[in-house]
Amino acid sequence: MTTERARRRRPRLARTPRSTAHYRRLENPFPPDIVLSEDRVAHIHHEARRLLEQHGIRILFAEAREVLAGAGCALGDDEMVRIPAEVVDHAVDSAPSTFTIQAPNPERSVSVGGRSVAFLPVGGPPFVSDLDSGRRRGTLEDFENFCRLTQAFDVVHANSPTVEPQDVEIEHRHLVSMRAQLRLTDKVPFLFCRGRRRTEDEFEMLRIRFGLDEAAFSATPVCWTNVNTNSPRQIDVPMAMGIIDFARAGQPCIMTPFTLAGAMAPISLAGALLLQHAEVLAAVALAQVCRRGAPVVYGGFTSNVDMKSGSPAFGTPEAMKGAAATGQLARHVGLPWRSSGSSTSPIEDAQGSYETLLNLSGALRGGANLVLHTAGWQEGGLCASFEKFVLDVEVLQVLAESWQPIDASDAELAADTIAAVPPGGHFFDAPHTLERFEHAFHEPLVSTRQPFEQWVEEGSHDARTRANAVWKRVLTEHEEPEHGELGDELDDFVARRVAEGGAAVD
Amino acid sequence: MTTERARRRRPRLARTPRSTAHYRRLENPFPPDIVLSEDRVAHIHHEARRLLEQHGIRILFAEAREVLAGAGCALGDDEMVRIPAEVVDHAVDSAPSTFTIQAPNPERSVSVGGRSVAFLPVGGPPFVSDLDSGRRRGTLEDFENFCRLTQAFDVVHANSPTVEPQDVEIEHRHLVSMRAQLRLTDKVPFLFCRGRRRTEDEFEMLRIRFGLDEAAFSATPVCWTNVNTNSPRQIDVPMAMGIIDFARAGQPCIMTPFTLAGAMAPISLAGALLLQHAEVLAAVALAQVCRRGAPVVYGGFTSNVDMKSGSPAFGTPEAMKGAAATGQLARHVGLPWRSSGSSTSPIEDAQGSYETLLNLSGALRGGANLVLHTAGWQEGGLCASFEKFVLDVEVLQVLAESWQPIDASDAELAADTIAAVPPGGHFFDAPHTLERFEHAFHEPLVSTRQPFEQWVEEGSHDARTRANAVWKRVLTEHEEPEHGELGDELDDFVARRVAEGGAAVD
Repeated sequence: MTTERARRRRPRLARTPRSTAHYRRLENPFPPDIVLSEDRVAHIHHEARRLLEQHGIRILFAEAREVLAGAGCALGDDEMVRIPAEVVDHAVDSAPSTFTIQAPNPERSVSVGGRSVAFLPVGGPPFVSDLDSGRRRGTLEDFENFCRLTQAFDVVHANSPTVEPQDVEIEHRHLVSMRAQLRLTDKVPFLFCRGRRRTEDEFEMLRIRFGLDEAAFSATPVCWTNVNTNSPRQIDVPMAMGIIDFARAGQPCIMTPFTLAGAMAPISLAGALLLQHAEVLAAVALAQVCRRGAPVVYGGFTSNVDMKSGSPAFGTPEAMKGAAATGQLARHVGLPWRSSGSSTSPIEDAQGSYETLLNLSGALRGGANLVLHTAGWQEGGLCASFEKFVLDVEVLQVLAESWQPIDASDAELAADTIAAVPPGGHFFDAPHTLERFEHAFHEPLVSTRQPFEQWVEEGSHDARTRANAVWKRVLTEHEEPEHGELGDELDDFVARRVAEGGAAVD
Repeated sequence: MTTERARRRRPRLARTPRSTAHYRRLENPFPPDIVLSEDRVAHIHHEARRLLEQHGIRILFAEAREVLAGAGCALGDDEMVRIPAEVVDHAVDSAPSTFTIQAPNPERSVSVGGRSVAFLPVGGPPFVSDLDSGRRRGTLEDFENFCRLTQAFDVVHANSPTVEPQDVEIEHRHLVSMRAQLRLTDKVPFLFCRGRRRTEDEFEMLRIRFGLDEAAFSATPVCWTNVNTNSPRQIDVPMAMGIIDFARAGQPCIMTPFTLAGAMAPISLAGALLLQHAEVLAAVALAQVCRRGAPVVYGGFTSNVDMKSGSPAFGTPEAMKGAAATGQLARHVGLPWRSSGSSTSPIEDAQGSYETLLNLSGALRGGANLVLHTAGWQEGGLCASFEKFVLDVEVLQVLAESWQPIDASDAELAADTIAAVPPGGHFFDAPHTLERFEHAFHEPLVSTRQPFEQWVEEGSHDARTRANAVWKRVLTEHEEPEHGELGDELDDFVARRVAEGGAAVD
């Protein structure tokens, strides 16, 4: 047992950082976990269709009700829409099971579906936090800095609405957020569904950036959004409008029921999954009725409330099992699916990391294609943390690297080297070692392996403190992608629209 | 996106803690990951046999060399032993693929092999740490307190040598360590191989505790040990002696090469695995030559050095891949296998948790049967932390709970309840909720889901600080298992052996 301890002999050879470009297109090499029998999966799908047909869903946006009525749905009192099973079936059949979202940099386009996995950073928080300034309302500067961090790491595959830039008037916020993503990164941007005029502004900026006319744009996915249903069984005006606008524009929309077991969903995990499935089917039906083949994603966010606080809980066994089951349900209907890495910890501590990683493990074991909130999310989604972003990227890089195959060729097995090194000796100076030294082993971003005494001597900095130094360094290294005249065009568009007063939330 | 946030409505109903006894016998419900082709697995096994036959292994203990020579091995210069492939094959055939270690409490016996998983706490550190007293040399009181914590949690399946009780003279240390385990817990105890006389003392204490004569003892596994080879290709005196003594006594011995890629093993992962496999086979051959059918375990500890510090690194992609490959190699030879949850962080921070969980994930995805160092290990094994023990147990409990099946019966699917709750409403007071409220959802041990403001108001305690309160509470709740006269007998034995001067390390 005693030899399982630090042995510190340090080879003194130069090493150069290895590119992490091989993280850009990740495929999950392992088959997904099976937690429900095929029979039960089919039964849940059947029950969800029955719920939609017999009991329906409430949709607060009249236009959405009308298009569904035109496809054969029955409208009832209180804005209820009953969706026949054949409308659901047709929708599921017409939605693509895989598609690609083009990025401004083609090497960073995102494949969605199949074995593909894309990690997305935190999305949605009103607050932001870092060790220097503490927890505060998010600003445009914070949003821009998260864009820079997103750009820096190959293992972060697209932009998210990392933090709400609350120092910008709501009428202009969408314009400057989209400009920041398009100027500071060359990755796929995100846009919120917060009203038709705003969506149209951002679509126009995308057409400028990609040089696409309206027809080409509507044939080319170049962004993504996420729509949360108002569980149980309700879709509000901006969300329904977003589903319609994205479907008509052929742009990818994730349909994510907020099915929190014990609150907005049944207290049983199976019940929460049934409700989730029904709501996804309704949202997908609306999208497909608007446009057959529109790219949609099955969103799974099912977790449970904490019984002491009533708050959403993440990294729970229920969330992990729910993720595996969601994967089975999504594959049953042939849709790509999105999950999350999430935590409720209010600080970048052990809990923050183990909850995020547990939730993420559930997502990956369930074969998720898009995993949102994988970098920087804390406090149950109320706060985006710069230090947490770095700590989470460390974990994503380890996972991505662990998916690379083992080279078990005879050269790597090194039987001759093993035979040549004397018993009880070491491999430091074996030719086999020296030939591979420069790029051997994944290098950590923020983890330390210093001996304790040295760590104390250098200030006893915990991972959170070290992460603070990392994100600041990465920001100083940021280089804005080349834009040429495109950058000016985007700036001109934003300036004009701001001068016109921007756009209110509908 | 905005609804993916805390909604805090708190049901006010009484709940009683749920038993965690269902964690006592865990089975991994998921098939292990495949990272090597069957062909490559067979090739590694073939190459390992060839290395042992053609080049051999150095064994520093003469008795071990003699018994191997008696079984057909060739002795060479410098204490080298060449082991013919047929001796290896015979050993692998005669070693059991599953066995059970009886615990003093039969409900806590440990199944080894197949789908069974047992989590063991940290083993081996000289130092101990807690928030009150800081990092210091381990004492008997610390060891006893870890025994109490081990006893408290059903998800911790057996004792480990959690920390070295350095305030006890080396001659008596084994006696008081074994007494502490047998008096303070009713779980399977651990003993070190540190010399024949000491081993015999501890075996005698086990015979007293279990009421077994020598013959019955040697037919009943009731404890475990771990032997580290001195990689590369060497087994020292106490380790070889331990292998022999445990095999002859029919007691379980884990054979764990310390194959750190880039130091004591080739820099390539495949090479480290080949060396690991050869060393395990040699140790298993020694055990089986001493006694056919002796319970042995394939130990996998392969990780890599950190290229900056030269220290062992844990939670690395190489360790994760190595664990999955080790599982394949162990199953190829039909042996149960042991892996680890490990971290190099010097403190109970984010790194400590994500490294341990990443390493543990690799172990579990690889189908490990025994997972050592899963609670309390930090600093690469130099320090046992009380707070880390609690933080790790939280994770183990979440994982164990996530393995429980989903009940997808119609009652749990709750279609009628979903139909009855109005759209946009909630499920707080549905009869389906109230019927299940008392025991719904796993409850965390140390994680908080408090709203940020409340968390700040109560002192902004991070997970490490809260863990400190948890282990102290658990210690106050400890009740020593009933022993009756057995306790006195053990005490008498220890008193007599201490009076006789104990036993030196051979």
